Amino acid sequence: MNFFFKPETIAVIGATANPVKGGNAIVKNLLAGFKGGIYPVNPKYQQIEGLRCYPSLREIPVAVDLAIIFIPAVQVPAAIEECARCGVPGVMIESGGFAETGTEGRNLQQEIARIRKQTGIRIWGPNCMGLVDAINGRFFSFMDHNAVKRGFIPGRVSLIVQSGMLSASFLVDIMSNNIMGISKVCSIGNKADINENDLLSYLINDPETSVIGLYLESIAAGRRFAELCRQCTKPIVVLKGGKSPKGAAAAISHTASLAGNHRVLEGVLAQSGVFEADDFKQMMDLCRTLDAYPQRPSGSGRTAVITFSGGAGIVAADFIDQMKLSVAELAVPAKNALQAIFPDWMPPTNPVDIWPAIEKNMGTGVDVYKESVQAVLDDPGVDAVLLLAFAGNSRFTFNLAAFDAQAKKAGKPFFIWLSGRRDEAFRAQTEAMSLGIPAFPELRRTVECLSAVFRKRPSPESAVTKNEDSSRITLPPDLCRILESVHGPLDEYISKQILSVYGIPVVSEKLATNPTECLLALDSIGYPLVMKGITPGGVHKTEMGLVELGISNKETAGRTFQKLMEKMNQRGKVLLQQQAEGKIELICGLMRDPQFGVSVMLGMGGVMAEVFAETAFAMAPLFREDALDLIERFRGKKLLEGFRGTPALDREKLAAILIALGNIGLAHPRIAEVDINPLIITATGAVAVDASIILE
Amino acid sequence: MNFFFKPETIAVIGATANPVKGGNAIVKNLLAGFKGGIYPVNPKYQQIEGLRCYPSLREIPVAVDLAIIFIPAVQVPAAIEECARCGVPGVMIESGGFAETGTEGRNLQQEIARIRKQTGIRIWGPNCMGLVDAINGRFFSFMDHNAVKRGFIPGRVSLIVQSGMLSASFLVDIMSNNIMGISKVCSIGNKADINENDLLSYLINDPETSVIGLYLESIAAGRRFAELCRQCTKPIVVLKGGKSPKGAAAAISHTASLAGNHRVLEGVLAQSGVFEADDFKQMMDLCRTLDAYPQRPSGSGRTAVITFSGGAGIVAADFIDQMKLSVAELAVPAKNALQAIFPDWMPPTNPVDIWPAIEKNMGTGVDVYKESVQAVLDDPGVDAVLLLAFAGNSRFTFNLAAFDAQAKKAGKPFFIWLSGRRDEAFRAQTEAMSLGIPAFPELRRTVECLSAVFRKRPSPESAVTKNEDSSRITLPPDLCRILESVHGPLDEYISKQILSVYGIPVVSEKLATNPTECLLALDSIGYPLVMKGITPGGVHKTEMGLVELGISNKETAGRTFQKLMEKMNQRGKVLLQQQAEGKIELICGLMRDPQFGVSVMLGMGGVMAEVFAETAFAMAPLFREDALDLIERFRGKKLLEGFRGTPALDREKLAAILIALGNIGLAHPRIAEVDINPLIITATGAVAVDASIILE
Repeated sequence: MNFFFKPETIAVIGATANPVKGGNAIVKNLLAGFKGGIYPVNPKYQQIEGLRCYPSLREIPVAVDLAIIFIPAVQVPAAIEECARCGVPGVMIESGGFAETGTEGRNLQQEIARIRKQTGIRIWGPNCMGLVDAINGRFFSFMDHNAVKRGFIPGRVSLIVQSGMLSASFLVDIMSNNIMGISKVCSIGNKADINENDLLSYLINDPETSVIGLYLESIAAGRRFAELCRQCTKPIVVLKGGKSPKGAAAAISHTASLAGNHRVLEGVLAQSGVFEADDFKQMMDLCRTLDAYPQRPSGSGRTAVITFSGGAGIVAADFIDQMKLSVAELAVPAKNALQAIFPDWMPPTNPVDIWPAIEKNMGTGVDVYKESVQAVLDDPGVDAVLLLAFAGNSRFTFNLAAFDAQAKKAGKPFFIWLSGRRDEAFRAQTEAMSLGIPAFPELRRTVECLSAVFRKRPSPESAVTKNEDSSRITLPPDLCRILESVHGPLDEYISKQILSVYGIPVVSEKLATNPTECLLALDSIGYPLVMKGITPGGVHKTEMGLVELGISNKETAGRTFQKLMEKMNQRGKVLLQQQAEGKIELICGLMRDPQFGVSVMLGMGGVMAEVFAETAFAMAPLFREDALDLIERFRGKKLLEGFRGTPALDREKLAAILIALGNIGLAHPRIAEVDINPLIITATGAVAVDASIILE
Repeated sequence: MNFFFKPETIAVIGATANPVKGGNAIVKNLLAGFKGGIYPVNPKYQQIEGLRCYPSLREIPVAVDLAIIFIPAVQVPAAIEECARCGVPGVMIESGGFAETGTEGRNLQQEIARIRKQTGIRIWGPNCMGLVDAINGRFFSFMDHNAVKRGFIPGRVSLIVQSGMLSASFLVDIMSNNIMGISKVCSIGNKADINENDLLSYLINDPETSVIGLYLESIAAGRRFAELCRQCTKPIVVLKGGKSPKGAAAAISHTASLAGNHRVLEGVLAQSGVFEADDFKQMMDLCRTLDAYPQRPSGSGRTAVITFSGGAGIVAADFIDQMKLSVAELAVPAKNALQAIFPDWMPPTNPVDIWPAIEKNMGTGVDVYKESVQAVLDDPGVDAVLLLAFAGNSRFTFNLAAFDAQAKKAGKPFFIWLSGRRDEAFRAQTEAMSLGIPAFPELRRTVECLSAVFRKRPSPESAVTKNEDSSRITLPPDLCRILESVHGPLDEYISKQILSVYGIPVVSEKLATNPTECLLALDSIGYPLVMKGITPGGVHKTEMGLVELGISNKETAGRTFQKLMEKMNQRGKVLLQQQAEGKIELICGLMRDPQFGVSVMLGMGGVMAEVFAETAFAMAPLFREDALDLIERFRGKKLLEGFRGTPALDREKLAAILIALGNIGLAHPRIAEVDINPLIITATGAVAVDASIILE
């Protein structure tokens, strides 16, 4: 990929002298910082921006590392072929008019993909804004030249973005406000060849990148993407555009229908340790925060708040409580240190309201800000400091550089909510940026970003651990045959037989096709029992009146057998099943996500599944840590703790079921979906009471 | 209250010539805009800031309308008494050192309250920053004089704030950024006398106020506050500080323990049509939005998005979907109008990405922005327009005044997400403010505020409708006696008898104290039945093993009777109860909130109550509309719709139960809490299966 990121020679195919055209901006933007050879290509010109212009690529006297192409879409395939013939290793196609524009464009893009395959040339784009490398002054983009001329702030955050805005105008916004600098911004456009995974791989090893932010509207190869994220030790922030469910595809199982458009992605990102953003500036705020604190600090997030306003301290405490941090309890030494500068009538508490102390010490030379910050930093019960500051009051000021030195020495995160008069706040923000102190104009965002720093992250090692249990499992030949030959849903009896082979506890049950079998089954199961009519392909037994509960004696069982057989026109079978005792119903299952493949789901069962679509997903294979994390992310996890009269469930037992589900999906590619609904929590563990395996 | 808001003469008790003191700032701030007579009072000075200074209040030659007091707390009571003696109708105490500082200060504040009662003088504060009236130039505040000197922007939003910051530095922030202007900002401090209700009453009738924002840390008289909010036709926004549960008080009932610190307030605010904010800038954003659109516009919130970036359009659509608006489907005429300026290859869709059209029409004189905005405004299927704009690209610009005229003519809300280069974005923001176009730097906030405009609001008329049903209900004498004499929890049998009198459906049940009564009860109830041991004051029957379910014959019933009596040492009674058939368990009840009095709760019942504390509250009395709104706010409302095998529940039936609960609480002041848990949804309606009334 070095020919994209560090080319020594660049041809600009479609360069022009017309200053309102993008082909002119590309040349100017290259001239603004690129140190290598620039070779404009256009038969209409002798010279562009003082550079010799070549009539064709062939005429360029040196080997070209990278060709930037900005010509009408229909001419692009020929241009790439020419590049390939001339030995150019990579092209960056910034022209639009491809897959984003309809049939004709889609065909052109397929043509490009064909050329890439045939020739081996690597293609970045089309329909993109190329690369911005603020550290090395490489602006391979047709963006407004004024933006380049007015300068970019170099930083350590790199971005991969599927939106031109985020590699052009939006950068102008955040940099003209001195919010953050950037390292490399890669606009990936239609991803005909180079996609987020290629760039992510590159940036993971890029010494100039400390944090990677991605804005994606599609994910090319989800499993690979998740693996890369998981292995990456640099923080990754993802904003996914296009989350709203626009008519979920028809799905037979709950698992698939509960997946929605975004739930699987959300689960996989969490599983992979990725930070998810949902707005543009918030994404940048998370990136710059994680640039300042790439490692999770020690402690649980016990936060000391230093504030100039009681009200702001109270609202900060509300956010701290809401966002899984906690308001630190100050120890006696910290309180004593504060009391020394506080008025006598005011006992120090956290949030630490320093306004009365500022008034008391005005004109005395005591630096109330500095002393208070030091007092809380010295407290071993404080993991982080949140300063609420106002810039622009002529009667008191603060010294950011001093705070930064104090916080660095203590090794504790230091965050600022910065309000203030426009110019003064801008100066303070500028200084905060240069010091690397995360500062934000909104209080909620400040606490949100502080909370992100303390979020637990999966260890990258677990990604390489293999779980090999499942490979040793083989299904009996009859079940194998079914999995190979049947289409659509399997009945619950067969489904549970298969699940059982993989170690998933299923309810004790027997099939009966005649009254004698029914009687035999009764003896081995015991009362109370459930009887269900099983018809081929029938998944909605309850609605069809084929489920009878609470059968407590032989006589009722016999009558029920007859009744069910009649309802099924004597063509079905009757399943006799131990009635599982337990109030808590879960649902779990697997589905094949188009982006991430086999994904495992845990959710609320029974009626609750329909009311609260509270589900959590993870991508298979699940390691123990993934499964426990999946359970932790499940909002109904309190159900597992046991209540008045309901038993608790060992999380390890549930984890084993989730792991097994993933393994089943990976072992049997014809299994499209599995639903265990309900999985009932009983006194001895969790048991699959009803289940359905759906084959392709 | 006019002596506070429109005094003609003001005495400043504690005025000083020392420029670093607040007593000097008050005088300077008055001089900056107050047109009436200013009378500094301080025996140490002859003159302050060019004004004659008086040794005492008595010496002032005119009648004083308002005294602003800024002297040490211990001297304040005497000063107020002096004011009262001199006939000053109101004082504004800006000194601190009262209830916020401990026992001594609390005593001083009680002393002030006593003087207020004795003399009738009205007291604003103490520990406050008084009043800022930007329209009339009245700055009755000790804030930094530089802030006043540099000017405040007059507007129509008034604030009542329990935090000095929000009436001083924070205003400097939002005004120096040209975010909004303000009308009156009232800093209320410790509220020894004048509280939010007094000021709310005033501002409701203030012609210079269109929207009222409140930041409150406590609510003085919750019921009155809720009534005022309900009657107010101006939009009200409330930010409540101190929401986090800091160790919920011990409570016997679920209803009370589920109330938390904030749930009742949240419910009452929603019931009263108040918009709730949770951050400072967001509060101001909501205020200025509702100033621009004080009435709910017609339509359901179908939004057209005009964007310069495809990615921003997609993320905007995600927020629109998430925030109860919808992405408008454009009609054919709108699409045709757009196609006329779009490139041929690009079919118009919403979000309307105008970038390709801008490129196509560059230099042609076609105003792509204006044409696109007009096309969607003309579409009857579009209720609002959201423009995503970038300020600072030299190649394309937009005209906010034209948009504003277009939108006003169409009568549709017009919102802007404004990104841009710092200076250009500031200029655009300044113009947006002067036009009254809501513009925001964060996309999420933009959609959030647009969504607020479309939120349904309760009609103020319903507040004056009375429901008189409950007044006609009288309890039988035996139940009356119990309500008058017992303390603590009533048993479930008596509790349900009382509820039943108020029309709440309860399960069919009988009490038995001996085997004969048990047999008699069996005949009238029928099988299956539930038997429960009832001991005086025993509310946790399940944990004590005193509940037996599914009893299906006389023999088992007899045995169970003996067993339960033994467990209770023959000292209890046995309740025989029809076993209600229904899977859906709700919980509802009432509690007395310290701020809002009798409040009614609806939540998830059974185990789910413990897992998802999904509850909604409203203040009694409930009118039908309140009760239906309470149900609508309940996150589990889908439970009422009926599912596979579970019956639906008519919302009117549930509403009647909630209304009755409120009436019970209002009719019987000794009832502290009521819990109906569970309320089971059966085929014929909802029935209270277990209930507990807790007396004081």
